[in-house]
Amino acid sequence: MLMHEDRLFPADPTTRRIARSLYEQVRSLPIVSPHGHTQAAWFAHNEPFPDPAKLFVQPDHYIYRMLYSQGVTLEDLEIGVEQIQNPRKVWRIFASHYYLFRGTPTRLWLDFAFETLFGLTESLSAKTSDLYFDTISEKLQTPEFRPRALYERFHLEVLATTDSPLDSLADHQIIRDSGWPARILATFRPDSVVDPDFTGFADNIATLGAQTGEDTAHWSGYLKALRQARARFRSLGATATDHGHPTAQTANLSEPEAAQLFITVLSGNATAAQRELFRAQMLTEMARMSVEDGLVMQIHPGSARNHNRKLYERYGRDVGADIPMPTNYVDALRPMLDLVGNERGLTIILFTLDETAYSRELAPLAGHYPCLRLGPPWWFHDSPEGMMRFREQVTETAGFYNTVGFNDDTRAFLSIPARHDVARRIDCAFLARLVAEHRLSEEEAAEVAHDLAYKLVKAAYRL
Amino acid sequence: MLMHEDRLFPADPTTRRIARSLYEQVRSLPIVSPHGHTQAAWFAHNEPFPDPAKLFVQPDHYIYRMLYSQGVTLEDLEIGVEQIQNPRKVWRIFASHYYLFRGTPTRLWLDFAFETLFGLTESLSAKTSDLYFDTISEKLQTPEFRPRALYERFHLEVLATTDSPLDSLADHQIIRDSGWPARILATFRPDSVVDPDFTGFADNIATLGAQTGEDTAHWSGYLKALRQARARFRSLGATATDHGHPTAQTANLSEPEAAQLFITVLSGNATAAQRELFRAQMLTEMARMSVEDGLVMQIHPGSARNHNRKLYERYGRDVGADIPMPTNYVDALRPMLDLVGNERGLTIILFTLDETAYSRELAPLAGHYPCLRLGPPWWFHDSPEGMMRFREQVTETAGFYNTVGFNDDTRAFLSIPARHDVARRIDCAFLARLVAEHRLSEEEAAEVAHDLAYKLVKAAYRL
Amino acid sequence: MLMHEDRLFPADPTTRRIARSLYEQVRSLPIVSPHGHTQAAWFAHNEPFPDPAKLFVQPDHYIYRMLYSQGVTLEDLEIGVEQIQNPRKVWRIFASHYYLFRGTPTRLWLDFAFETLFGLTESLSAKTSDLYFDTISEKLQTPEFRPRALYERFHLEVLATTDSPLDSLADHQIIRDSGWPARILATFRPDSVVDPDFTGFADNIATLGAQTGEDTAHWSGYLKALRQARARFRSLGATATDHGHPTAQTANLSEPEAAQLFITVLSGNATAAQRELFRAQMLTEMARMSVEDGLVMQIHPGSARNHNRKLYERYGRDVGADIPMPTNYVDALRPMLDLVGNERGLTIILFTLDETAYSRELAPLAGHYPCLRLGPPWWFHDSPEGMMRFREQVTETAGFYNTVGFNDDTRAFLSIPARHDVARRIDCAFLARLVAEHRLSEEEAAEVAHDLAYKLVKAAYRL
Repeated sequence: MLMHEDRLFPADPTTRRIARSLYEQVRSLPIVSPHGHTQAAWFAHNEPFPDPAKLFVQPDHYIYRMLYSQGVTLEDLEIGVEQIQNPRKVWRIFASHYYLFRGTPTRLWLDFAFETLFGLTESLSAKTSDLYFDTISEKLQTPEFRPRALYERFHLEVLATTDSPLDSLADHQIIRDSGWPARILATFRPDSVVDPDFTGFADNIATLGAQTGEDTAHWSGYLKALRQARARFRSLGATATDHGHPTAQTANLSEPEAAQLFITVLSGNATAAQRELFRAQMLTEMARMSVEDGLVMQIHPGSARNHNRKLYERYGRDVGADIPMPTNYVDALRPMLDLVGNERGLTIILFTLDETAYSRELAPLAGHYPCLRLGPPWWFHDSPEGMMRFREQVTETAGFYNTVGFNDDTRAFLSIPARHDVARRIDCAFLARLVAEHRLSEEEAAEVAHDLAYKLVKAAYRL
Repeated sequence: MLMHEDRLFPADPTTRRIARSLYEQVRSLPIVSPHGHTQAAWFAHNEPFPDPAKLFVQPDHYIYRMLYSQGVTLEDLEIGVEQIQNPRKVWRIFASHYYLFRGTPTRLWLDFAFETLFGLTESLSAKTSDLYFDTISEKLQTPEFRPRALYERFHLEVLATTDSPLDSLADHQIIRDSGWPARILATFRPDSVVDPDFTGFADNIATLGAQTGEDTAHWSGYLKALRQARARFRSLGATATDHGHPTAQTANLSEPEAAQLFITVLSGNATAAQRELFRAQMLTEMARMSVEDGLVMQIHPGSARNHNRKLYERYGRDVGADIPMPTNYVDALRPMLDLVGNERGLTIILFTLDETAYSRELAPLAGHYPCLRLGPPWWFHDSPEGMMRFREQVTETAGFYNTVGFNDDTRAFLSIPARHDVARRIDCAFLARLVAEHRLSEEEAAEVAHDLAYKLVKAAYRL
Repeated sequence: MLMHEDRLFPADPTTRRIARSLYEQVRSLPIVSPHGHTQAAWFAHNEPFPDPAKLFVQPDHYIYRMLYSQGVTLEDLEIGVEQIQNPRKVWRIFASHYYLFRGTPTRLWLDFAFETLFGLTESLSAKTSDLYFDTISEKLQTPEFRPRALYERFHLEVLATTDSPLDSLADHQIIRDSGWPARILATFRPDSVVDPDFTGFADNIATLGAQTGEDTAHWSGYLKALRQARARFRSLGATATDHGHPTAQTANLSEPEAAQLFITVLSGNATAAQRELFRAQMLTEMARMSVEDGLVMQIHPGSARNHNRKLYERYGRDVGADIPMPTNYVDALRPMLDLVGNERGLTIILFTLDETAYSRELAPLAGHYPCLRLGPPWWFHDSPEGMMRFREQVTETAGFYNTVGFNDDTRAFLSIPARHDVARRIDCAFLARLVAEHRLSEEEAAEVAHDLAYKLVKAAYRL
């Protein structure tokens, strides 16, 4: 067996018994996944997933980041190759390095998928590489492993994707039109048209103008176009926006200042400070629009993207070389909060890659401002220890009810149940300790466990 | 029952047994409270406390901060209202939101007071709101609930207040004159006359001049006036000063530079940098005076005060919108430490809202400089997890003996026993783990537990 | 007894049983000590160690830092005195303050040495001071306590020293020539000739020129001289370099820029920014040379050296007044990593005094770049809690295999077995928790424990 029924529960027998009992009450709840990076196309077309290498290794930068750090080349893994030439060989490299993942969440997620979906019970290694490859390959061809069947098997209630304002959302429309009663929702992620450092920024804005019929060469038309795009997302059920900025900086410029800055960044001649100021202003504009249209706003700051220059030049974005940076919230958010911080109709969900902000800035901010909530531990911190630190460092100041349940944030569709399972287990483990230390009654803990697994996410994301 | 006899002790039976045994040896020790925000007037006049809403909800920004974050308005809570119109209704709002405090220290403190002082054993909720209101209201009218009676019941040995140099300390004088044998001591908190950003700074300094008969329009008279004010506090038994600066920055200007800077800040035309430099210089001046007069110096840096502009404009200071900031000590304290760092007769107690400083800067500094000691976890970190992190991150470098026991730092008089009880339990829990892991003998741990609960605070604050 | 067989293992019986079993498999492995500050002279000449005060107190700034913080003067401890006048008195001061070390790693290391080497079983205190002094003094005169005998008794396999490029390495040569089959290796630590703030920088470079016959008045001759010095170290078996910079800043200047900057810093007229830029450039140069010659590179940034001005002026460097600072890696290392980050033949080991970098920057960097590995918790963090935080915060992102085992980093030869024992126990305790929580099989954990204690250090340091 790869997985033990009591995994992730504290070893102390009293605490474990409580954790187990809490978990039994939430383990079968539907999965609400309000933030992630799966493809609507999978569900629109419902084609079988390809081979194991293409499914597990190629899209998962958690995996090839680690392999790369230990000397495996991206060439060996055929990263960036449209059609993998030798998937079995790629799989074998992965299998023979699987020991590198000991103690990591990737290992937990994969073992969960291997065992519960594919019935594999011996650990992945060079020795079992082919067994894994063949077993997985075969199952992927069966109807039970088509995307829609898996969606249902995973007991998903909502699954959000992340989409550019330029996206036609055609696949989302196809899903809707198909009559398949699943709730797969787009999320409005405007980085490509609000971040002057995004590749093709000016062209993207021109395209946005063409798509919306607005004059995006000027500030007011640009804002109108964004409003239109948001409305289009909402008409397909979207409830949220997402913003992946390098910092959490916000600004509140006057209308003429903003209009002038827009001209400057559009010209391509803006300084780094002006580009940062523009991103800052756009967070505030997005917050203002959220007050109007009710879209929940997610802010994901603090990643130094594409840190490895050579890899970026050869392979482009998202190859596992994004590194977190120290992130300030207390000063950075002030201009936006001065404007909208006390709005009761607004929800802004904050994430961090800098765990030092949990107890110092994020919990105090969320424990005060009505519009603020804390997103779950993110990216590198979406892990048992990371989740536990989040609860330990956030709860005493912000409570449980200024948090929003779990995000899986994944490109790896097959890892979704595993990730939510880890989150539920860790939350139950944390609550069990509070119960065992007589800081909370077991009855209350059960209510909180349910809220963390199901209720808070639906409320926060307005689902 | 709201409270379990073993609360806050680790679940592991061996460790719990040790924690319980250590705690038994310190639970009944007198409470020494060297830093807090209770009112001397309560003890001078010994009037009954008002209704439950006025007593528990209105003065406690921990409480209404959380309620506010979840959409309750300050109007609903009648914050800032002199005379609460509908205390029962305010209490009901609080009661029906009491679940928000699950997992927070506020919940521990309140349950402790509810049960041990008022005999309430069913949890506070909408359902029990009136029962609580009536029970508490009734008891507050009895002689046993007058301030002096509670002081004695709480087994307080010392209780320090926090006072402006402009305060007449009349209430402290009344207490002294009354012959009541309690030790209620003022603390010299000069923010209003050393921080150019404090409301009414120049007027405050003029008042200080009038009160002391010194020429506070000039640097030397200003320093003399401060010396006089300190002497006045000492004559009433004060042993400490307290400094609530935005940063820990210190400076060591020449006398002419300082004199000129004083003129500039007094004129109201100083830049932000000059105002910060003046605060920095004044920390060093206060340290110099402490070398002379023996007052223990407390430095509380790192809070971005009044972060919520709209609330500040409407309600003023201290409405739960102060947010911690990253805080540097290693460079900031250097000018002051260059001057007085090696003084054996000086005690400077450092606090932080930035927990990252514990292991990186504060423990190494306190583990070297003879004048430095570490204050207990403060404000948002005065909590079970916060206290445990403090011990875990500080002890290995600074030991136990460069710390100073516990501060309750509270405006909420009724929470004092609860807060000290939490501190004693967590210290015993930490020590119990050291014993269980054979890092300390149980005999030594008992000695340390006693020192942390009683001896260190008396020594550090010279009580 | 001072030491319990189960010390540092978690109290939970299941977890403890697993920890014990893992530890049994690694406790007797040879000690590989790839980074430290013992003296080759001890082993070259094999003289008896002097008295207990000279052996334990005088060279150990962990000890006198703590004593100093509590009011003991360096005069009392005869620090900086060539020949201790009254070692028994110094020892008594230490003994009577031994309680200050409760909860610190120093206490663990010393008790280990006292009991296992000297057979002392009653705790050190004023009462046992003379017993300790006499017992230790007597044993130090026996052949079993000579340096070489202890090296063998400690089961050392490799012991690295830290040496200036100006050092003749005569003692290393004597050891080699003696035929004694121990592996005592120099480490190339060029701070004195690459850091313009190092005392005697220009003179040191002139000496380097004289020793190598290169024209070190110019950039190219300077680089050649460094290459020569590295080759000399390698010829005596050195496998690593070490760099103790205030920050982790690197730079990648053009050759003419670097040559010009070298002239400027050599002139003594460089600004602080230029001196920092030169250090930054030299890290990159050292990395470039490591690509050529295979020396493993260690970077130790983040200490504000000689923070106590008065002590520095009187006693010089390394008197316990070095205080950690916030340390950035993600931006600082970028210039160097742009150049050599993807080199598979290069190993750069990163250390930190700023624990916030573990999960935010160091683990993500090491979990991506092939050349990067993480050094063990360092200095103030070389402690049970510090080691546990390291594993908890690093493993989920970087795994175990981007770490390099343990460094004792000590001047105190007698503490080496104790320090490695603490590291092995804590690693086993961490692994035991993973096993007890079913995150790793016990079989895998045993393999990892062995790797952490023995295999990784040999691989990373190429020993």
